[in-house]
Amino acid sequence: MTVAFADVAALEAALNRLPVMDRAALAAARTRQAELTKPEGSLGRLEEIAVFMASWQATARPRIEQVRAVVFAGNHGVAARGVSAFPVEVTAQMVGNFRAGGAAINALAASCGAELAVVALDLDRPTQDITAGPAMTADECLAALNVGAASVPAGCDLLFVGEMGIGNTTPAAALCAQAYGGTAARWCGRGSGVDDSGIARKVAAVESALALHGKACTTPFETLRRMGGREIAAMAGAILAARLCRVPVLLDGFICCAAIAPMAAANPAFTDHCLAAHCSAEAAHARLLGHFGLEPLLNLGMRLGEASGAAVAVHLVRAALAAHNQMATFAEAAVEQPG
Amino acid sequence: MTVAFADVAALEAALNRLPVMDRAALAAARTRQAELTKPEGSLGRLEEIAVFMASWQATARPRIEQVRAVVFAGNHGVAARGVSAFPVEVTAQMVGNFRAGGAAINALAASCGAELAVVALDLDRPTQDITAGPAMTADECLAALNVGAASVPAGCDLLFVGEMGIGNTTPAAALCAQAYGGTAARWCGRGSGVDDSGIARKVAAVESALALHGKACTTPFETLRRMGGREIAAMAGAILAARLCRVPVLLDGFICCAAIAPMAAANPAFTDHCLAAHCSAEAAHARLLGHFGLEPLLNLGMRLGEASGAAVAVHLVRAALAAHNQMATFAEAAVEQPG
Repeated sequence: MTVAFADVAALEAALNRLPVMDRAALAAARTRQAELTKPEGSLGRLEEIAVFMASWQATARPRIEQVRAVVFAGNHGVAARGVSAFPVEVTAQMVGNFRAGGAAINALAASCGAELAVVALDLDRPTQDITAGPAMTADECLAALNVGAASVPAGCDLLFVGEMGIGNTTPAAALCAQAYGGTAARWCGRGSGVDDSGIARKVAAVESALALHGKACTTPFETLRRMGGREIAAMAGAILAARLCRVPVLLDGFICCAAIAPMAAANPAFTDHCLAAHCSAEAAHARLLGHFGLEPLLNLGMRLGEASGAAVAVHLVRAALAAHNQMATFAEAAVEQPG
Repeated sequence: MTVAFADVAALEAALNRLPVMDRAALAAARTRQAELTKPEGSLGRLEEIAVFMASWQATARPRIEQVRAVVFAGNHGVAARGVSAFPVEVTAQMVGNFRAGGAAINALAASCGAELAVVALDLDRPTQDITAGPAMTADECLAALNVGAASVPAGCDLLFVGEMGIGNTTPAAALCAQAYGGTAARWCGRGSGVDDSGIARKVAAVESALALHGKACTTPFETLRRMGGREIAAMAGAILAARLCRVPVLLDGFICCAAIAPMAAANPAFTDHCLAAHCSAEAAHARLLGHFGLEPLLNLGMRLGEASGAAVAVHLVRAALAAHNQMATFAEAAVEQPG
């Protein structure tokens, strides 16, 4: 099944009836973990990952065969405000690099056995500067959400998404501030490497955007279209579509998580089908994961985007499922349990 | 080359002339990292892993083809003091499970592409109870060290070792207390799951061992033979042999690290060829890594032993080297750098 939203009302209806995990499969997977030849709980979060995968795949023995990675790219009007260390041309240049196989995500997706898709969204037509008006029209935002939703293949065992978009930590910070409150400064960091004056420009841009759009952000969709961006909306659409198909998701870094902040703030259960792959070096990411109530699996100081952190965490899911599915039980191996 | 120590003097001579990393390869790998198509430092600890592997393999483009895992098993006289939640028969039963392919390390080694060897050391002849005398004679300890050293294959790209030995957190705690000081209680935890009275028995055993052997522990070898165990000495021998062959090592959990505590306390440079794969749920492990000056790569609440945590971290090394070796440079991809 491919998910598509005919209009904003259809999107909102989907957000109001999110599927839930399979509690029987969850219980069966927990029972199996307790029977495997190891002290109970001794595989730590690997056990939690296996049970999570079971609960969303609705089977006691979850699979990890078809893993899909999607990198969405978009350009941002607000980049003209000097909020990035890199020139805006780099978005398109990096899409070329992704397609030629030379970027980090190419190596990391291959390393973790994920099939990588790259989706560039109207790079020659940046979103409107969010300090001057809404980033997108409703039609543009819905189209971007649907591009994301369409990228989730039927029968996918695990999905992760990421982004490339020069300047996109600024809309990401605006989305977080709108969703969870707090000052602009609280959500703005160095991104790909801006200096202190660059951070000051980001803070000023986020403050302007909040002042301009804040009152009009009455729904997750409105927040996303006013302060987001095309690649950001596409990530949100993909993560929502995964939920509708009960596909488990590994969340990447700050921008990926900011993309779903409007939905998660409106409904904390929105992230139930997600694991936080890692904690980025961008300080706002740890705060955002705290709001989601998610504990990151990895903490490697990464801050690249491109779904790179999630790609590394796929390896942990592979390890977790290998142990869960392949280990012998105490009875099978004739090993004694604690007396 | 296979390493073997003819006598204790040969072992001590080896400890006094440890090879060092290749600084030219380290510098070349750092230069390459700075040229790859990503903001500098944005792959975080993956960059550090790649540079570490380069420095020990003495090449700017390190390999990860031949990965060797070795699990050593031994039995402990001190287990009779009720220091474990499991009966001592479980050591041999788990060796059977390893050989039949049903344990966690079988699944995790296969998942990370490591070749697994299982070495049982005289399971029907437990070491002497360390509260009553030295665990091993000098010949027994040297033999165990040499079993470990012989398990490191020539041309290995990465090594990790682990253990199985009911009761072995007690000698491990004694080794740490002797090497780094602090009370017995500071180094004793629940291990595979003992209750509070079990912890009290461990603390009492470690206190007795320290009182009995402390003054005689004048060298790393004496500490290891008096308070260690066969599988513990074998791990130390393997990690030392790896150093002599410039093979990088991923350190597993508390027991694996305790095995080298006597050497590392005598010479902090002993762990230079090691990365800490993970931080165990056994609280003493974090303290020990602090003494080593090593920051763990993973923190997943694992506490199984068997080299299981290191096996998971092999995936991170694979991801790190995939990015390091396969990514395009800014020049190759025609991507602009920050202005």
